[in-house]
Amino acid sequence: MTNPFRIAIAGLGTVGGGVVKALAARRDELSGRAGRPLRLTAVSARDKTKTRGFDLPVWHDDPLDLAQGDADVVVELIGGDEGIARQLVETALTNRKHVVTANKALLAKHGLALAALAERNGVTLKFEAAAAGGIPIVKALREGLIAHGVFAVKGILNGTCNYILTEMETSGRGFAEVLKDAQALGYAEADPTLDVGGGDTAHKLALLASLAFGAAPDFNAIAVTGIEHITADDIAFASEFGYRIKLLGIARKTGNAVDQRVTPTMVRARSSLASVSGAFNGVLVDAGAAGPFFFSGRGAGEAPTASAVIADIVEAANGAASPVFGRPAASLSQPVAADAMAAVSPWYLRFEVLDVPGVLAGIARELAEAGVSIESMIQRGRAPGEPVAIVMITHETAQAAVERALKAIAASDKVRARPCMIPMES
Amino acid sequence: MTNPFRIAIAGLGTVGGGVVKALAARRDELSGRAGRPLRLTAVSARDKTKTRGFDLPVWHDDPLDLAQGDADVVVELIGGDEGIARQLVETALTNRKHVVTANKALLAKHGLALAALAERNGVTLKFEAAAAGGIPIVKALREGLIAHGVFAVKGILNGTCNYILTEMETSGRGFAEVLKDAQALGYAEADPTLDVGGGDTAHKLALLASLAFGAAPDFNAIAVTGIEHITADDIAFASEFGYRIKLLGIARKTGNAVDQRVTPTMVRARSSLASVSGAFNGVLVDAGAAGPFFFSGRGAGEAPTASAVIADIVEAANGAASPVFGRPAASLSQPVAADAMAAVSPWYLRFEVLDVPGVLAGIARELAEAGVSIESMIQRGRAPGEPVAIVMITHETAQAAVERALKAIAASDKVRARPCMIPMES
Repeated sequence: MTNPFRIAIAGLGTVGGGVVKALAARRDELSGRAGRPLRLTAVSARDKTKTRGFDLPVWHDDPLDLAQGDADVVVELIGGDEGIARQLVETALTNRKHVVTANKALLAKHGLALAALAERNGVTLKFEAAAAGGIPIVKALREGLIAHGVFAVKGILNGTCNYILTEMETSGRGFAEVLKDAQALGYAEADPTLDVGGGDTAHKLALLASLAFGAAPDFNAIAVTGIEHITADDIAFASEFGYRIKLLGIARKTGNAVDQRVTPTMVRARSSLASVSGAFNGVLVDAGAAGPFFFSGRGAGEAPTASAVIADIVEAANGAASPVFGRPAASLSQPVAADAMAAVSPWYLRFEVLDVPGVLAGIARELAEAGVSIESMIQRGRAPGEPVAIVMITHETAQAAVERALKAIAASDKVRARPCMIPMES
Repeated sequence: MTNPFRIAIAGLGTVGGGVVKALAARRDELSGRAGRPLRLTAVSARDKTKTRGFDLPVWHDDPLDLAQGDADVVVELIGGDEGIARQLVETALTNRKHVVTANKALLAKHGLALAALAERNGVTLKFEAAAAGGIPIVKALREGLIAHGVFAVKGILNGTCNYILTEMETSGRGFAEVLKDAQALGYAEADPTLDVGGGDTAHKLALLASLAFGAAPDFNAIAVTGIEHITADDIAFASEFGYRIKLLGIARKTGNAVDQRVTPTMVRARSSLASVSGAFNGVLVDAGAAGPFFFSGRGAGEAPTASAVIADIVEAANGAASPVFGRPAASLSQPVAADAMAAVSPWYLRFEVLDVPGVLAGIARELAEAGVSIESMIQRGRAPGEPVAIVMITHETAQAAVERALKAIAASDKVRARPCMIPMES
């Protein structure tokens, strides 16, 4: 326990503040774990004058100063996939400083180049906090589940979406209303697009897929559907069929290709992913012969995210040197993207149609022509001349066929709104 | 990638064989992860002539030779808390070789001394495979969930017991019958005592508690009850009350003390632990502000256990240097054992009594005198003069009071067999 390990933190929002507080509260224990005294030596944030409830060490107005100073590790909690965050991480690595970050967008976009930069400079780049909050899933995929290969990762990776879907289920209310409440409670951002649109889940999925399959993170290969079009009806119908709707990030090997998608999915009500409620996250890993593994915990918030950041700091202090994405950067493949349209599953379909003769026949004909066969159907209530919902479950069908049928069906003037299609766990 | 990392394995049973096979099948990938070529250089096992389905490297009749040779890591898969396994681990550490082991009994008993020995010699002692099979729970507790402290760990840690309890629930059959089938299927040992008696769970719990609380493993402090006395009736009644019976290892902080116990427990049917079925394991970690974490996966078997061993080997090759139990051996406390009798919960009680007048009154009086109050009761069927079951759920009560009452009740000649008491999740 001789050389202190000097920590510089850029960004003192919720997470940064949580890291500073937890480091202070448990300094001795954490130093013992690290094998060296941990010392917070420098910080940078937007507003020096803000009251923060903790003492500040040396302040820098310019976060880039942290990459030039004497820190051993730079903790990047600024966010954003370009600009100052990227510059800070690149400069710190170039200057042979370890980097710990929670920045999923940066790594989903520039992960391969940054991993290579870290390797060239003999330092580590750690990002446990970038996916699934406090759940040590990055560590588990990078170091734990490595012996038999990973074949698929499925995760509830966005607490805001899971909170909204859980609330919709519990209260029977619609998406817009629940979102508004979530915003008022601070569970959703003023601009919720990145969360409810699935982009945040996609950032995280890109990182988990990279760790799982030894491929470079490839954000652009991910087909993304959000939860904005899920209705209270969809959730009620799901429940009737014995399912719940969850926004999943799914990455799986299909032959030599990798299929990555973010999509609302009907999961069996008794499955482990269905049991993840509220703002929690959960990840299911298919690790071949070693079996399925399931992890759940808080996906966001001060303590869970700070917990992940601190684990990374201690590990960097400890000299842990596993490669950034588990394998040497040079060996990370450029994955072949699977044909998203080829994915096969049963599908939940919902149509809003006018209750007039011949509508159902028309839908059935288009489905049959596209080769989509129906396992069950619900049409409830009658409202002659008014819109009603028709819900169908298909047999296992390729996405392409379902989309082809739905495009034809949507063209009918008896069909109101865009038909809804949700894949179901088979 | 210059110096190879030389691996010597003692014990080539199911797990050892799995390790050899997985190392051979994925040598290049695992070497990339390790940053050095992994090379299996020596083995020792009981029978050199056995057909194993893989090529053997240099064979040693005496496992202790492995600790004297040029290996960088000795993998101990012999088992047993004394004798050759202990001698091998001690000699290897003394000779400055890393050790990877799946030996829970050895570490539960000698963990502190071995951790100190590893530290003095500047090598690591890793044991992911010793608890919860392939689930990376040792790593999670040692390195992941460290920022905010851990307050409790509850785990289903023995696949044999969980398989038996699940089968009893599914089939309605009794313990003895299901155990016999489990033995025939190879899910239970010929002598099942260590599993069904709770000892194996206690070994694993001692390790998890040590990691969680920074205390020396203390096997002897654990109060252990097995599943031998659980009846098909208990399981059926549990289900009626909305619970399942699981054998849990539970370690929790109570003030300055640590309460460690292994006991059949009624968990809510919709809880995460209740969802762990068959031979799976599951662990719930209360990590304070960072929230509850839940992990599940296969608890035993060739691939899951080999997966854990290989993760440890790669980490040792990588130079990962976190202390054996997360904190320096010198800082591991000798935990104060909590008074087991002071533990408070609701209790499930089952009495086998003769159906004659006055029996229920007698039981009720003893319970009242001990200060045990009843929340609900089921007595089903009538069989004048014959044995019938009476089942009660108590309000929150200290274990001491319940045991006092049961002792008095058991003394009655109207009460057949030993009354059954099972704590319930409150």
